[in-house]
Amino acid sequence: MAKGNIITPRTLSGFMELPPQEQVLFERIKATLEDTYQMYGFYPIDTPVLEYSNVLLAKSAGETEKQVYRFNKGDKDLSMRFDLTVPLAKYVAKNYSAITFPFKRYAIGKVYRGERAQKGRFREFYQADIDIIGDGSLSIVNDAEIPSIIYSIFTDLGLSNFTIRINNRKVLNGLFEMNGLDDSATDIMRVIDKIDKIGVDATKAELIEVGVTEEVAATLIDIMTYKDTNANVIAKLEGYKGRSEVFDLGLSELSDVIYYIGKFGVPEENYRIDLSIARGLDYYTGTVYETFVNDHPEIGSVCSGGRYDNLAEYYTKKSLPGVGMSIGLTRFFYILNEYKYLNTKLNSPADVLIIPMTDDMSAAVSISATLRECGIRTQIYMEKKKFKAKITYANKLSIPFAMFLGEDEIAADKVTIKNMITGNQETLDLDAAIDTMVEVLEEMDEESIITK
Amino acid sequence: MAKGNIITPRTLSGFMELPPQEQVLFERIKATLEDTYQMYGFYPIDTPVLEYSNVLLAKSAGETEKQVYRFNKGDKDLSMRFDLTVPLAKYVAKNYSAITFPFKRYAIGKVYRGERAQKGRFREFYQADIDIIGDGSLSIVNDAEIPSIIYSIFTDLGLSNFTIRINNRKVLNGLFEMNGLDDSATDIMRVIDKIDKIGVDATKAELIEVGVTEEVAATLIDIMTYKDTNANVIAKLEGYKGRSEVFDLGLSELSDVIYYIGKFGVPEENYRIDLSIARGLDYYTGTVYETFVNDHPEIGSVCSGGRYDNLAEYYTKKSLPGVGMSIGLTRFFYILNEYKYLNTKLNSPADVLIIPMTDDMSAAVSISATLRECGIRTQIYMEKKKFKAKITYANKLSIPFAMFLGEDEIAADKVTIKNMITGNQETLDLDAAIDTMVEVLEEMDEESIITK
Repeated sequence: MAKGNIITPRTLSGFMELPPQEQVLFERIKATLEDTYQMYGFYPIDTPVLEYSNVLLAKSAGETEKQVYRFNKGDKDLSMRFDLTVPLAKYVAKNYSAITFPFKRYAIGKVYRGERAQKGRFREFYQADIDIIGDGSLSIVNDAEIPSIIYSIFTDLGLSNFTIRINNRKVLNGLFEMNGLDDSATDIMRVIDKIDKIGVDATKAELIEVGVTEEVAATLIDIMTYKDTNANVIAKLEGYKGRSEVFDLGLSELSDVIYYIGKFGVPEENYRIDLSIARGLDYYTGTVYETFVNDHPEIGSVCSGGRYDNLAEYYTKKSLPGVGMSIGLTRFFYILNEYKYLNTKLNSPADVLIIPMTDDMSAAVSISATLRECGIRTQIYMEKKKFKAKITYANKLSIPFAMFLGEDEIAADKVTIKNMITGNQETLDLDAAIDTMVEVLEEMDEESIITK
Repeated sequence: MAKGNIITPRTLSGFMELPPQEQVLFERIKATLEDTYQMYGFYPIDTPVLEYSNVLLAKSAGETEKQVYRFNKGDKDLSMRFDLTVPLAKYVAKNYSAITFPFKRYAIGKVYRGERAQKGRFREFYQADIDIIGDGSLSIVNDAEIPSIIYSIFTDLGLSNFTIRINNRKVLNGLFEMNGLDDSATDIMRVIDKIDKIGVDATKAELIEVGVTEEVAATLIDIMTYKDTNANVIAKLEGYKGRSEVFDLGLSELSDVIYYIGKFGVPEENYRIDLSIARGLDYYTGTVYETFVNDHPEIGSVCSGGRYDNLAEYYTKKSLPGVGMSIGLTRFFYILNEYKYLNTKLNSPADVLIIPMTDDMSAAVSISATLRECGIRTQIYMEKKKFKAKITYANKLSIPFAMFLGEDEIAADKVTIKNMITGNQETLDLDAAIDTMVEVLEEMDEESIITK
């Protein structure tokens, strides 16, 4: 194109592109997730954004397929990944002989869905997944580790009033079986999944519609809406034992999971058996989780997952059971930001701005190297601007400290630091200045990213 | 598709997909880059992988455009980003009024180029970029900060025998001007850029081909191949002063950059003026850098960059000068891995594997929570397998410690830890075991990721 023509710099709608200070907060949340996943010994795994369409779409049909970004390049039919689970299945099947099981992996990456654009809906978004994959079998204790990871993440971020709701699909299937409803289990599950949204009456009506008698519908709803301590819910379920093998197995799994979650140190108020959590997907076969922020149930589940029998049945005949969970990171961030729950005090890219007051900046440059060695994120303001412009820069970037280096300071081998929050200003030896700053910065570091 | 049909799980060629242990090493290198960029106070900026084609391809023509993954979705003409510079230009132009300048940003992300597949060439690869963008003007001291960041990264990774070669395009342009060669500057630059590859004689021949006299070609090559200390090279260049304004300006910039790089603490042996570094692109207008691993010049530059006058001339009429550099992270990792330069001792996802020897795993689960609080990456082996299988798991994952929890240990409130590297095994109080492990782990943490 001819020089001088200006193209309007647009970004596609549904593609989150944050201003600098918000991006700092986003990265802090992402880092908390990564740190926690690593603390539990999960491998990081990075798979391509692009895959062969026939590989990526081996399983899916219908709605998902319509949303996929799919195109030809040369003679290849390509698709952009729409989640991180299918690429994981491909990865494990492909690398089966090189992997040691149980295989614990996390992945935080962008996925793509060409959904209808609407506020709070994204076409490019981060998912942050963890999964534990067994070879043939996988201990039920893993199903308790996942909620402990969810708890750890949300607590580290600063949330406390959240509940991980836990259920077991075998318990539900067992209840259906007891009532002669095995064949319509999938339909019933789909109806139950909506109970929080549509309410008891509509659920009952829909259950009757899919062939459940009014009496059984009432029983099912009675059980599924039963809210009590975990121990009492298990006690109630014990009353149904001995009538369905699958129910008994599910109850035993559910009891084990609840027992071990406590051992992981998760407080009772943060996890609760909720028999109405079904999770629509066929994929799940045992434990299922959803996580709700109690003040904002309308947000829906911010972190969901569960146990499945076969990760990769489309790619291998090996039995690869697993358990995992996923956080929709982009949407989660969007909501926190919209509600103004984020700690904007933590949105600076630097801890200190060195402001040289002399033409030669050698002293500033040397000191910057020392500060970075002490772990202090350091910028130097190098432009020839008026003093006010330099201070404005520090303020606009919310940098907590400014350090002035004039001829007097350099001659006396001192530095002047100003705490930009309190306004307090002192001229000190460099070592004393570092101590002063580190103390304040360590306090800031203790603050939560979510202030709610 | 019908269940039971198996799709071969393939990955596209040119798309790096690492085995788990190599991915751990990749993530460590990536984290070193991120940490360093943050230490210098750069903002993280994340832009979409997909953009409007007319926005992304506003500037490019020819070879780049052919390689772009471009397609239609609905009525939109979309392209996948092929570098991180064009998205940055778009971002800065779009958010101009919200940005405080100088704007320091880093970006580490995947980019896409449908190149001819060949060993060591990638179609999806990470770039790790930093740029400092001024509004109208930008101090030359910034041009010295970039090499100090390169130095810091490579040193932190464990490399020492590398050289950042530095030049200034104005010095070259000035030399051409003095010799009446202003018009063929771009052609000459392109020839000179190859001098390391094609040698002096071929360079001379090619210079004559683009219209340089034999005598001038000899002079240019003489200057450009002059190797000496930075001070001596500058002294030699001083001899040409007063004959071209652009030369004098370039020499002044180059002197300032060399002066300040030293102040940043970069040892003299790691940066050298190399007047043959031209960097083919029109884009650069002042300082240019390339970085070479001295034992392997055949790898080419592993980190390049420079100063430019206009970041975003296709999107805005604002003058946005900047300076930056880019590391081709995927290729860099690929080479390090091929040469076996990576420290495989650091490739474990966990620091300790707890091996419960009783049916009830409560003790193991409780202890795991304590270990993680101490910053020890902890896995529990939960599967019912023979003891040998459990130890094999720890060995295969290169986990440095195993912790055994049998009835005796639990009864005595002790744990048995085994150093998997030395084979040393001890039964200790938990606190003492933690101290023992932390000491070893901290030593490991001091080790470099690159062992060369």
